Amino acid sequence: MSPSGDLQTRFIQGDRRALARLITEAENGTDTGRAALRALYGRTGQARTIGITGPPGAGKSTLTNEFAKALRARGQTVGIVAVDPSSPYTQGAILGDRVRMQELSSDTEIFMRSLASRGALGGLSAATLDVIALLDAFGKEVILIETVGAGQDEVEIAGTAQTTVLVNTPGTGDDIQAMKAGIMEIADVLVVNKADLPGADLLVSQLRALLSLLPDRTWMPPIVKLVAIENVGIDELVAACDNHWEYLTASGRLRGQKEERVRHQILNLGRARLLAGLMDDAEGGVRLDELVRAVADGELDPHTAASEWVGQEAPA
Amino acid sequence: MSPSGDLQTRFIQGDRRALARLITEAENGTDTGRAALRALYGRTGQARTIGITGPPGAGKSTLTNEFAKALRARGQTVGIVAVDPSSPYTQGAILGDRVRMQELSSDTEIFMRSLASRGALGGLSAATLDVIALLDAFGKEVILIETVGAGQDEVEIAGTAQTTVLVNTPGTGDDIQAMKAGIMEIADVLVVNKADLPGADLLVSQLRALLSLLPDRTWMPPIVKLVAIENVGIDELVAACDNHWEYLTASGRLRGQKEERVRHQILNLGRARLLAGLMDDAEGGVRLDELVRAVADGELDPHTAASEWVGQEAPA
Repeated sequence: MSPSGDLQTRFIQGDRRALARLITEAENGTDTGRAALRALYGRTGQARTIGITGPPGAGKSTLTNEFAKALRARGQTVGIVAVDPSSPYTQGAILGDRVRMQELSSDTEIFMRSLASRGALGGLSAATLDVIALLDAFGKEVILIETVGAGQDEVEIAGTAQTTVLVNTPGTGDDIQAMKAGIMEIADVLVVNKADLPGADLLVSQLRALLSLLPDRTWMPPIVKLVAIENVGIDELVAACDNHWEYLTASGRLRGQKEERVRHQILNLGRARLLAGLMDDAEGGVRLDELVRAVADGELDPHTAASEWVGQEAPA
Repeated sequence: MSPSGDLQTRFIQGDRRALARLITEAENGTDTGRAALRALYGRTGQARTIGITGPPGAGKSTLTNEFAKALRARGQTVGIVAVDPSSPYTQGAILGDRVRMQELSSDTEIFMRSLASRGALGGLSAATLDVIALLDAFGKEVILIETVGAGQDEVEIAGTAQTTVLVNTPGTGDDIQAMKAGIMEIADVLVVNKADLPGADLLVSQLRALLSLLPDRTWMPPIVKLVAIENVGIDELVAACDNHWEYLTASGRLRGQKEERVRHQILNLGRARLLAGLMDDAEGGVRLDELVRAVADGELDPHTAASEWVGQEAPA
């Protein structure tokens, strides 16, 4: 049996080290990783996925850990993917992993992995989806996807989950102002963390006002007040996510949502693949250099150069 | 003469309405806009471009207006592009335009345009570059590119300028924490705005500490303290940008920087064009639907689907 097939066998047998190894292979886009995703993809589709996003300092890591413990307490197995697109060159993610793994390591049914590299084909979003697929195929019943920041990338990644939880915290009025309308639009559950701080009720009413500005929809996001660090209100959060899951199932949205996600993923990967193909093509590389010089010299405009580069006629 | 050719003639004669109209055409990706960019691109390459970015509330609009007035005071013509990727469906950009244009409208040598739509081929970044090219071709000597937020998109857009100014403001310690390392890396000039507020000196020392963490480089970003709303320190900012320009010219970085920018632009446009081609292809659309269903059913993994979609063999 090939080493790659052996890894897959151990993965299917429930070997956590095989899971960890295949995640690394998939993240790095190796042939072993690709082959595993192909072979194991039929095992996916069982896990529930919950995205957790919000501004820096909102206490997302603590909340995610307590969330995971609550799920474990009722017997569900858990995968955690912590995504930090903001640290391209620091080792923050890996360090954070160690600290958090120590806290959770007593429970072998929680598997946690941090992602921070941008190197993957199709970007961090693509790598995250591959890791989720492997955790799903491994049999994790709930997968929590925690994003560290609150930028466009983070929102996009958290938005690929079936249920997206937006974590806010009182006292920093700027957070509400700075909050992009787009974030509110993808939130299925709103959390006010650190709800023992002054201003928690004000924040709840601000969030309610923001929600009222959104277009009508069949699911109205609940607002859950909690103090994650004291494990207060976590059960309410779990219940709110369960309610949203029941809504998705009963309304038939689950399948449509999945097709949207898959369509986006194929487009994203297809685009990356086309571009990689162009870049790999040695002649393409030379031609690109010539086009760059011509545009920099003002002899050609960038749109015409792009058309020539991809081998299409420029529009008339 | 065709209506499009007539617009170009008026543009070359210095008609501001022709400039405004061609910017709209370019933004919307019309044939008229493309043709104008092709015909007029040879006139570009004369303008200096300065990007202005920073967190919400840092006073970037006020600073940009005062910057523009200072440039006018020494006889330079000015274009302003204000980019707001965060408002996909509000009319904020257009409203803001009116308010600001009233303030600046006494001076016909300042031309200002806001961009907020994401519809353009290749995204907002591509649209911004087209608008800059037209302002450049029109003869604007300095183009200020102001981004409203501080996310990945905003940083990327501000980073396409020859000189990037990062605006900070004291009193909100979170801003420093939340500040992405990537933002510091692209900043050529650091501004502490609202420097009359408490904490300005602390912020300066924090910024200095952050700068010291960056890898060595030949240009060390200066830190300029100013109070934009009272027009205090604007001359120092103008001088700092002039110094950076002289550094770019003397070091020969200007050409390399331009080629990097053009390369990125061609890649971005080429990718968008390939994808648009695939989407336009009716057969491609049907095939994509089938692939989406197969992946959603777990019969195929997304990477294999993407390879099949773009017509490449899946890797072994």
